[in-house]
Amino acid sequence: MSPKKPSESAVQTVMRMFPSDANPAGNVFGGEILKEIDIIAGTVAQRHCRTNVVTASIDKVDFLKPVFVGEALILNAQLNYVGKSSMEVEVSVQSENLMTGDIRKTGTAFVTMVALDENGKPTQVPELVLESDEDKQRFEDGKKRMQARRS
Amino acid sequence: MSPKKPSESAVQTVMRMFPSDANPAGNVFGGEILKEIDIIAGTVAQRHCRTNVVTASIDKVDFLKPVFVGEALILNAQLNYVGKSSMEVEVSVQSENLMTGDIRKTGTAFVTMVALDENGKPTQVPELVLESDEDKQRFEDGKKRMQARRS
Amino acid sequence: MSPKKPSESAVQTVMRMFPSDANPAGNVFGGEILKEIDIIAGTVAQRHCRTNVVTASIDKVDFLKPVFVGEALILNAQLNYVGKSSMEVEVSVQSENLMTGDIRKTGTAFVTMVALDENGKPTQVPELVLESDEDKQRFEDGKKRMQARRS
Amino acid sequence: MSPKKPSESAVQTVMRMFPSDANPAGNVFGGEILKEIDIIAGTVAQRHCRTNVVTASIDKVDFLKPVFVGEALILNAQLNYVGKSSMEVEVSVQSENLMTGDIRKTGTAFVTMVALDENGKPTQVPELVLESDEDKQRFEDGKKRMQARRS
Amino acid sequence: MSPKKPSESAVQTVMRMFPSDANPAGNVFGGEILKEIDIIAGTVAQRHCRTNVVTASIDKVDFLKPVFVGEALILNAQLNYVGKSSMEVEVSVQSENLMTGDIRKTGTAFVTMVALDENGKPTQVPELVLESDEDKQRFEDGKKRMQARRS
Amino acid sequence: MSPKKPSESAVQTVMRMFPSDANPAGNVFGGEILKEIDIIAGTVAQRHCRTNVVTASIDKVDFLKPVFVGEALILNAQLNYVGKSSMEVEVSVQSENLMTGDIRKTGTAFVTMVALDENGKPTQVPELVLESDEDKQRFEDGKKRMQARRS
Repeated sequence: MSPKKPSESAVQTVMRMFPSDANPAGNVFGGEILKEIDIIAGTVAQRHCRTNVVTASIDKVDFLKPVFVGEALILNAQLNYVGKSSMEVEVSVQSENLMTGDIRKTGTAFVTMVALDENGKPTQVPELVLESDEDKQRFEDGKKRMQARRS
Repeated sequence: MSPKKPSESAVQTVMRMFPSDANPAGNVFGGEILKEIDIIAGTVAQRHCRTNVVTASIDKVDFLKPVFVGEALILNAQLNYVGKSSMEVEVSVQSENLMTGDIRKTGTAFVTMVALDENGKPTQVPELVLESDEDKQRFEDGKKRMQARRS
Repeated sequence: MSPKKPSESAVQTVMRMFPSDANPAGNVFGGEILKEIDIIAGTVAQRHCRTNVVTASIDKVDFLKPVFVGEALILNAQLNYVGKSSMEVEVSVQSENLMTGDIRKTGTAFVTMVALDENGKPTQVPELVLESDEDKQRFEDGKKRMQARRS
Repeated sequence: MSPKKPSESAVQTVMRMFPSDANPAGNVFGGEILKEIDIIAGTVAQRHCRTNVVTASIDKVDFLKPVFVGEALILNAQLNYVGKSSMEVEVSVQSENLMTGDIRKTGTAFVTMVALDENGKPTQVPELVLESDEDKQRFEDGKKRMQARRS
Repeated sequence: MSPKKPSESAVQTVMRMFPSDANPAGNVFGGEILKEIDIIAGTVAQRHCRTNVVTASIDKVDFLKPVFVGEALILNAQLNYVGKSSMEVEVSVQSENLMTGDIRKTGTAFVTMVALDENGKPTQVPELVLESDEDKQRFEDGKKRMQARRS
Repeated sequence: MSPKKPSESAVQTVMRMFPSDANPAGNVFGGEILKEIDIIAGTVAQRHCRTNVVTASIDKVDFLKPVFVGEALILNAQLNYVGKSSMEVEVSVQSENLMTGDIRKTGTAFVTMVALDENGKPTQVPELVLESDEDKQRFEDGKKRMQARRS
């Protein structure tokens, strides 16, 4: 269970939004975006620990801008912090207007995932290798948020 | 735009979970539950203000217990607090094992919705009529959370 | 296997209709409503008998009024009658225009569910406790319909 | 608006059932089958009258046998009877075990569709050309059922 | 494992296209049509060999004309050629404008399916009985395409 | 309409496969993968030309290895060649076993997309800037395939 860098588990996904993703107002439904945030966070966590994982919580998500049908939803997800069995994944959400190339920030989510062993009990995850200053800063910020979540 | 009681817009929904709601581990996918939380919060908000509404943010959601395929997901949603154009909807999530009748608390979510006028601009919402002590307490707590969100 | 009141298994569900529920004419697709009727009837039946259940038949369903995308579909389902292993569930379907609060009756369905034991054979269901005159009338009417179905 | 034979609008469809069509017991969900019955009935009606159509009612549907994931659902739908603006479509439902070729009758449904003009009002449909004795018998039986529905 | 005629495994399916099948431009999404081509090809192959089957490849598919929401997608699929364990299924795709009856050719696909035994290994398929000249021509053409695929 | 490099429109997407993506054999359904190939190809093409695009054809797709539920489907798509109004997008499909990190090549697809102007007519696309030898080789190979498609 050797330590890994955040870049080894980071995931980007780009998904074109279809009419079947729309709410009655015709924009992309926030619940659909939340669903995709949960999926990508699980993929990052599982790439890091190579065990089953479960979503423990999702921090406050702000929907800053609407996303429109026909746009591409761009999700970038990477690990900020790992504890003993828990991991904080940061998911940045953007939308790209494919007719103009304009990219807007839609929101950011912090998802706490827990690694599970074969009996469904929390299990130890590999440590994070922190190379850049940015990685170290993300780790410290994630640690503070994790402590705040627990109190 | 006469004031309304929280009970006038409250919504309960009971949905049986199907295999198509499962994650690869076979349990109900958290993202699916988040999607349903967003839908029911929007219905409550729209019942209160009878205008278009949009999700501004979803506070931290804890997934306390897994939900299994075949169980009924029970969502209860009601307004806690209204400001000028924003509303806080509390969504309590339970799951019922339909073979035993056992009901477990799965999580709670606080969703901030904003009322929009016909031009998509924030618009005034009706006031809340607070009758019971519980309603008043929920309003005070919601107000504090709303202030914390803004700062 | 103690007797139960109809209110112990009754279910209400409120579901906002989305563009993905529409037929090519842009209204909510009748087949989608039939699907939801079947789901809620099964949930009521399973709450009553706490065994597996299967849909035996759905009586004539009239679609009195169209339901529109953006409206809330309101389903109320409760047991009318139980025989040895079969149960009649009545599902009333309404739609609520969330912009005006106007509620219209969309249709009513009578669904016959059968309780199954672990080998998939019909099994005895708990009796119904009939307290109000309405409960007794529903039971008598359901019994007559069940006899008509069998002949 | 020349008269047409039932065979000119008849539709067969064969659909393999997938895990996403299953109920929690693992069989094909009855609500899914009802949805497909409604779709095929609308296609038959629209082929006959070449206008918009709407489902007015679905008669009692019996689910005689379960359908399993992996089987092919075979729907055959044709017109029995046409009135002024209403049409009765009979949908026969079978399932085929693709590993053995065994075909079982799953149920039969009678669906009443109404032709609509451009303003959404009921409109005249073409007459049915009845050539075979079977066509004539179906027409007479359909006419009786339509009269029973109205009383 | 007696030989079978192509007509014994041929499948026709007619599916009305819904708004949930649309791409952001509002037409039926090509990927949805490809999905249906794959399903029907598997059904034909499984009807012929009555074993599990897997898609090995799909030849070039041309999308000659757009398909619109509200139209019926008509797929006709039949076996052209069988080798030892592989089968070539030809799927012809048409769309019918249900308001006018106009039928247009949308595309044609050649799908190679492989029969699998219980261990997931390729297994022998029944021979094709070729009666008409058309059947024989289809077999010869399919054989040439299969040889071209392998080289 | 300045020329662009292939890297400016390239897209990677990583999608965890769910039980609702499975075929009756329990593996990921080939038709689902074809659908995703079509979506990502359209996104690449639209990023290049910033107009509407339509799928003209998909070349032969080989399914080399099955993809399993729970794995991540990894799609990498980029432009090989552009003509006057048509573009060839190459989509490489891999699957990653998230429990082991093992990545397998599942298939490769060549998709021909056409740029459309506001009247739905083919329109000129920006040229490709070819910097690396690999880019030049991809362009030459794509050009040959395009000529073969036309003859």
